[in-house]
Amino acid sequence: MSGRLYGVGVGPGDPELLTLKAVRMIESADVIAYPAPDDGESFARAIAARYIRQGVDEVPIVIPMRAARHPAQAVYDAAADAIAAHLSGGRDVVVLCEGDPFFYGSFMYLFARLQADFTIEVVPGVTSLTTCAAVAGAPLAARNDVVTIAPGTLSDDALRRQILASDTTAVIKVGRRLTRIRTLIGDMGLMDRASYVSHASLPHQVVTPLVEAPEDAPYFSMILVRRGADPWLN
Amino acid sequence: MSGRLYGVGVGPGDPELLTLKAVRMIESADVIAYPAPDDGESFARAIAARYIRQGVDEVPIVIPMRAARHPAQAVYDAAADAIAAHLSGGRDVVVLCEGDPFFYGSFMYLFARLQADFTIEVVPGVTSLTTCAAVAGAPLAARNDVVTIAPGTLSDDALRRQILASDTTAVIKVGRRLTRIRTLIGDMGLMDRASYVSHASLPHQVVTPLVEAPEDAPYFSMILVRRGADPWLN
Repeated sequence: MSGRLYGVGVGPGDPELLTLKAVRMIESADVIAYPAPDDGESFARAIAARYIRQGVDEVPIVIPMRAARHPAQAVYDAAADAIAAHLSGGRDVVVLCEGDPFFYGSFMYLFARLQADFTIEVVPGVTSLTTCAAVAGAPLAARNDVVTIAPGTLSDDALRRQILASDTTAVIKVGRRLTRIRTLIGDMGLMDRASYVSHASLPHQVVTPLVEAPEDAPYFSMILVRRGADPWLN
Repeated sequence: MSGRLYGVGVGPGDPELLTLKAVRMIESADVIAYPAPDDGESFARAIAARYIRQGVDEVPIVIPMRAARHPAQAVYDAAADAIAAHLSGGRDVVVLCEGDPFFYGSFMYLFARLQADFTIEVVPGVTSLTTCAAVAGAPLAARNDVVTIAPGTLSDDALRRQILASDTTAVIKVGRRLTRIRTLIGDMGLMDRASYVSHASLPHQVVTPLVEAPEDAPYFSMILVRRGADPWLN
């Protein structure tokens, strides 16, 4: 009998934001897989580390830096093969996923390759979206608000349209685009409605009004913009 | 010294989707508050019930049914007063929030009333957004995708624009608008790209292709629509 594959969200960084279910899955897994950089530690593994049993089989999925934005099909083909071999041998495999497995992660590349042949369960996790809002003290949405998550890679025109079409916009993957995006938001008259967050929930978390955001924003930083009046007193 | 106020996300319904931090906060709270209906059980309290200490002070925040869509200011004024009295007495208060406190919840109404006078910490939770995607086997977003959360209360024109401007749209609060929204999505040629989910993560969860969705969709049901080709094999 084949093992089961679990895509398990490990949340935004604070190990206490793991779910009880994630902990149970990690503690009982036969095999643990996770994305890892060329060198250095896997962030997903670091979040979950205290719950990984000693001696468990580990499958690092090494994503070459240059492939980070255009993931190499070959990396996921090989990872899927390695995981399939474990599953076929009757071993349950947990893939650790930063945040949530289906929210801007790489788990879906494995899911697409393995779902026809194996039973897969996805365990949702706390996303950076709501964690950034939590630490910024910035409610995302009430009632009939529209919320959009838009990557900083969009053109100024496209980003402006998204912001204008939504009550709240989360601009993700800010990084070196910070200055350009901040200028756009300032030109739109929304600077006093915008917050900047990086490393939410971690000890080195940064939370500032956008106007005070540091110039060296990391790739995984976020800008939250809320248009219009706050309806939250009603 | 005043107590601290915690807005604690309890996730979408499965008690195992509580975070470790939520459990710790709930177990150590002096006072537990939660939204509750006129009659019947509080859903947020039910999710967290096994971690609520016997004999702890409880503050139900009763939202009259008729006020559900236009929350009565008076209800939140009174709840904020009751909570403020506990905080001023040095007691920590945990407000249980379905899903995440800042993602379409009512916690922000308390946050707005109490943030000037008390220390508030928001503990993010797993949202219905990613839980619906998980149980539907429907990845929400990869790479530079745009994701929009749009309430079913939008007009057909507004909803069509949101869907066309995004890679993935989550239509929330579907309920009795199901037939109208399904017709719209069918007319847009996206029926085979749409899933319907209600009660995600609960024993009575329903997951179907949109075309097979039940006519009696509950208020808190969701439609996920993904446009375009899946990039997930790369």
